[in-house]
Amino acid sequence: MGFYPLMLPFEKKLKLGQLEVGGGGFIVAAGPCSIESREQFLEIAQAVQTAGASLLRGGIFKMRTHSHSFQGLGEAGFEIAEDVRERTGLPLVSEITDPRQIPTLGSVVDVFQIGARNMYNYELLKELGRSSKPVLLKRSFSATIEEWLAAAEYVRGAGNPNVILCERGIRTFERVTRNTLDLSAVAYVKAHSDFPVLVDPSHATGVRALVRPMCLAAAAAGADGLLLEVHSKPASALSDGQQALTIEDFRALMNDLGRLLPALGRWLEPGPLPRGAARASLAKTLATAKRVSLVGPDAPFTS
Amino acid sequence: MGFYPLMLPFEKKLKLGQLEVGGGGFIVAAGPCSIESREQFLEIAQAVQTAGASLLRGGIFKMRTHSHSFQGLGEAGFEIAEDVRERTGLPLVSEITDPRQIPTLGSVVDVFQIGARNMYNYELLKELGRSSKPVLLKRSFSATIEEWLAAAEYVRGAGNPNVILCERGIRTFERVTRNTLDLSAVAYVKAHSDFPVLVDPSHATGVRALVRPMCLAAAAAGADGLLLEVHSKPASALSDGQQALTIEDFRALMNDLGRLLPALGRWLEPGPLPRGAARASLAKTLATAKRVSLVGPDAPFTS
Amino acid sequence: MGFYPLMLPFEKKLKLGQLEVGGGGFIVAAGPCSIESREQFLEIAQAVQTAGASLLRGGIFKMRTHSHSFQGLGEAGFEIAEDVRERTGLPLVSEITDPRQIPTLGSVVDVFQIGARNMYNYELLKELGRSSKPVLLKRSFSATIEEWLAAAEYVRGAGNPNVILCERGIRTFERVTRNTLDLSAVAYVKAHSDFPVLVDPSHATGVRALVRPMCLAAAAAGADGLLLEVHSKPASALSDGQQALTIEDFRALMNDLGRLLPALGRWLEPGPLPRGAARASLAKTLATAKRVSLVGPDAPFTS
Amino acid sequence: MGFYPLMLPFEKKLKLGQLEVGGGGFIVAAGPCSIESREQFLEIAQAVQTAGASLLRGGIFKMRTHSHSFQGLGEAGFEIAEDVRERTGLPLVSEITDPRQIPTLGSVVDVFQIGARNMYNYELLKELGRSSKPVLLKRSFSATIEEWLAAAEYVRGAGNPNVILCERGIRTFERVTRNTLDLSAVAYVKAHSDFPVLVDPSHATGVRALVRPMCLAAAAAGADGLLLEVHSKPASALSDGQQALTIEDFRALMNDLGRLLPALGRWLEPGPLPRGAARASLAKTLATAKRVSLVGPDAPFTS
Repeated sequence: MGFYPLMLPFEKKLKLGQLEVGGGGFIVAAGPCSIESREQFLEIAQAVQTAGASLLRGGIFKMRTHSHSFQGLGEAGFEIAEDVRERTGLPLVSEITDPRQIPTLGSVVDVFQIGARNMYNYELLKELGRSSKPVLLKRSFSATIEEWLAAAEYVRGAGNPNVILCERGIRTFERVTRNTLDLSAVAYVKAHSDFPVLVDPSHATGVRALVRPMCLAAAAAGADGLLLEVHSKPASALSDGQQALTIEDFRALMNDLGRLLPALGRWLEPGPLPRGAARASLAKTLATAKRVSLVGPDAPFTS
Repeated sequence: MGFYPLMLPFEKKLKLGQLEVGGGGFIVAAGPCSIESREQFLEIAQAVQTAGASLLRGGIFKMRTHSHSFQGLGEAGFEIAEDVRERTGLPLVSEITDPRQIPTLGSVVDVFQIGARNMYNYELLKELGRSSKPVLLKRSFSATIEEWLAAAEYVRGAGNPNVILCERGIRTFERVTRNTLDLSAVAYVKAHSDFPVLVDPSHATGVRALVRPMCLAAAAAGADGLLLEVHSKPASALSDGQQALTIEDFRALMNDLGRLLPALGRWLEPGPLPRGAARASLAKTLATAKRVSLVGPDAPFTS
Repeated sequence: MGFYPLMLPFEKKLKLGQLEVGGGGFIVAAGPCSIESREQFLEIAQAVQTAGASLLRGGIFKMRTHSHSFQGLGEAGFEIAEDVRERTGLPLVSEITDPRQIPTLGSVVDVFQIGARNMYNYELLKELGRSSKPVLLKRSFSATIEEWLAAAEYVRGAGNPNVILCERGIRTFERVTRNTLDLSAVAYVKAHSDFPVLVDPSHATGVRALVRPMCLAAAAAGADGLLLEVHSKPASALSDGQQALTIEDFRALMNDLGRLLPALGRWLEPGPLPRGAARASLAKTLATAKRVSLVGPDAPFTS
Repeated sequence: MGFYPLMLPFEKKLKLGQLEVGGGGFIVAAGPCSIESREQFLEIAQAVQTAGASLLRGGIFKMRTHSHSFQGLGEAGFEIAEDVRERTGLPLVSEITDPRQIPTLGSVVDVFQIGARNMYNYELLKELGRSSKPVLLKRSFSATIEEWLAAAEYVRGAGNPNVILCERGIRTFERVTRNTLDLSAVAYVKAHSDFPVLVDPSHATGVRALVRPMCLAAAAAGADGLLLEVHSKPASALSDGQQALTIEDFRALMNDLGRLLPALGRWLEPGPLPRGAARASLAKTLATAKRVSLVGPDAPFTS
């Protein structure tokens, strides 16, 4: 007997290059909150790829509460993003904050992320609806599920069906966590819409120690994958260090997921391999680690 | 003995043409949620002016939850806005939803309104900070007071000191009202910042019958004025009709305010008079109604 | 033209001895959070009476988050309560936390207060419904208005119609205030129920400087009165000192209310005078201060 | 490599008769919201026992928003409770709403449940602290985690260390679910306290279809077990039918848990077997179904 056979058909697939989202496999997008330098981003990118991440995340334009906080590298980050994406072969998801960034940012990212604070920025959504590039739409921390789905319709209604939702916690009275992760929203949206749904436990909890259990819970609740902050040196990160997993944390989590997903009738969706010499080496490492469960598709790695 | 002598100095003035905001007088911006047609907007504008409104509000670009809802007249509304503003002489406040609207919308409005859903749209705030036109910054329904003040600093920090804040209710668990009006935020912000603060009880409550008591409460809490939805035919309004005051409601409210404000050591701030023949007639009407209290400045109407 | 002529008829009166609640007059219940000693309680009680308070508040059984915090004097406070109530002649409102306290606590208080944390304690409500003593029912900080009214029906349905509601702020995401005072709930409940409604801005805001503007706003929103924490030495109070008004703050507030209420077509409801020699002296003081507006009933003081 | 080896030591055990709570095994308390009749309760009890439940739940005194709603059978339910508990051998958890119920209700239940609405009823908590019977303390839907743990200390501080916590959703702005299940609170409390933690997805979601994914997510987040509403005829239940699992739903869920838990290094904790003839039969059924994973303790059933 399968899991969720009626409720979660996993038939609503979306392709990011060769990577399938929402078809039963579980994808993991990982990387730093902000791209800080070439060295930082490359180191983290290669580490998460080795551990089994299938997408890369890294902020270029940041949304910060205070105007005097680090706002991301901006256009200075484009060349770094392009280089790291080229070397690893991983698709890159990064936040867009202004419709005028579409042509330039669009040339270096594979998925436009709409941050929680821009979920209601309908002008931006409409503009992205006129593009065909996939859009990762985070739920605003104050949005009802209905509003979140309605925001997704702004993109789809304007012509772009490639929308991935992302639950990242809602604002409540609780104070030990940054937000309250709403996993029932994941199950609800899987049952009532066509969109794949990721979960971002880093922003939801704001507390490193809570990220791992919430990742496992997200998988069990039926999420299609994760969006995770990972940093090689969280203590000196320019933003959100307190919630970033270390590389070691991330490896342990991927091991846990590799064991948990098959019990849910699912598998870790393999990401693209790097080009060149690193390719064979990584393929071997991943096969040895048996991190990818046997219930998934036959050919585990493609690029 | 005066009211709030230490806490609310009312020394933080801002000028909108001849109209002073935040100097102890109480301003009232009124009008329809959306500009629907020339006839509708002119009728409402003249009615609220006759009743004592000092600013005009009217949406041209609307932010709606659903992409299939009425989105405002858009550029088709510019000429109507310009005409009505010219005829009444009242400054116009209208929402901006995209930084690319600044040059065009800017030519027909006196105050750019940032709607609650765009309070976190920092790219828009920064762009408006490079303008000198006053900005009315609504509090997001999910924003802490700290975030709201930090958003105002995005505008001021970019060079535009002319920011007016507007409390319009926060999202809570309560369901009989659309949002929960947070009047303590008004008192807090008056004590801890330099910005004038208006209150929008129409969006905060979403219920016509609650608008009047909340207007009086806002005045008593120390607000610098109100932003109100008024419609001549609320039942057939294209947006938010259930919370709009009728013209008659609005007149009764202005009478109430005319009695209440002097007991708080304050006065209704008079708005500009219309040009031409209507001028003398309105001046007479308002004087007869004694709607403007005697404790205000000597020359009650200027234009 | 009067204020709220249709919405707030003020016809739903309730008598506390000679004191009328909900009939248009505005009552003020004031006193310390906790009764700490005879000297403390008597000093504060006499001071608030001199300033025009019509009821006395003072906690005997306290509800505290932590079991190691001061829990009130308990039965040791009964004799103090009785003595101060006798000397001032003011009705006393104090919190009941257990149905088993009804006979004993009931002999020293005039109004049983149900604290916010016990609003859902239906066994206690039903038991108080079998008594005839008035009940002051605070809204739980998590209660919808519907739940609050339903809780009041537990008391009334069990036979006791003497219920006074008290709004004291709801729990939201905002952090600079302890809770968010929901004044629209006051206007809503006045329009949709028969119960008088007080407002407690001390607990709602948790910040002394915000109490005064919220008191005035409560009056303007149509509340029937206030429940206020006042302490002669807030800095050394055993509970909630940071939100207590000083005696001087309280006097200034009563002055403000004395000016504001007549502009709302209302008046400060006079409380009983002390017995004995203090009586004539206080009557004279209050008359001189003209703190009681002329629009109220003819005979301002009764006892 | 085990799961949560450092964060969730599962060393904080508590015994309910032979049943161990918090030692790594996963317990499931199931049954109707309210005991409605002997037939109803026995039928459901036997069905959930056969499916692997280790405890029985069933309300006798109900907390209802409206005084005219069904309030539970009250004392009339005692004899039914005693009979069904005797026949199945399962420990019974049922809500206590008044300290005066301790002696009587205590003779028919094994665990006193404190409902969410009584979490702040400190008089009740203190009284239960003077008993030695285990207490299941639900988190109030408005309680911060700190307040919840502080409430548990009222019981423990008064002398009763046998406290089990239960997360059941918090009140937020979201409306498609009854409350928002806060699974990060489970992980937090496991890491920061000694108390076992159950999860009640029935009340948290209020929607039958969301219960199963939230049960699996709760297990993955590290909960020690579940508290579930199961009804043989949900459509005609006297309370909360819309969120009750059917018997068939419950069996499917237990199958899912039987597969999921071993992947988390855990197991379904077996409950007592019924006395008499039913004993051998049920032991055989459960063994055949292999519902109890092999990683658990050797002797799966004890009574």
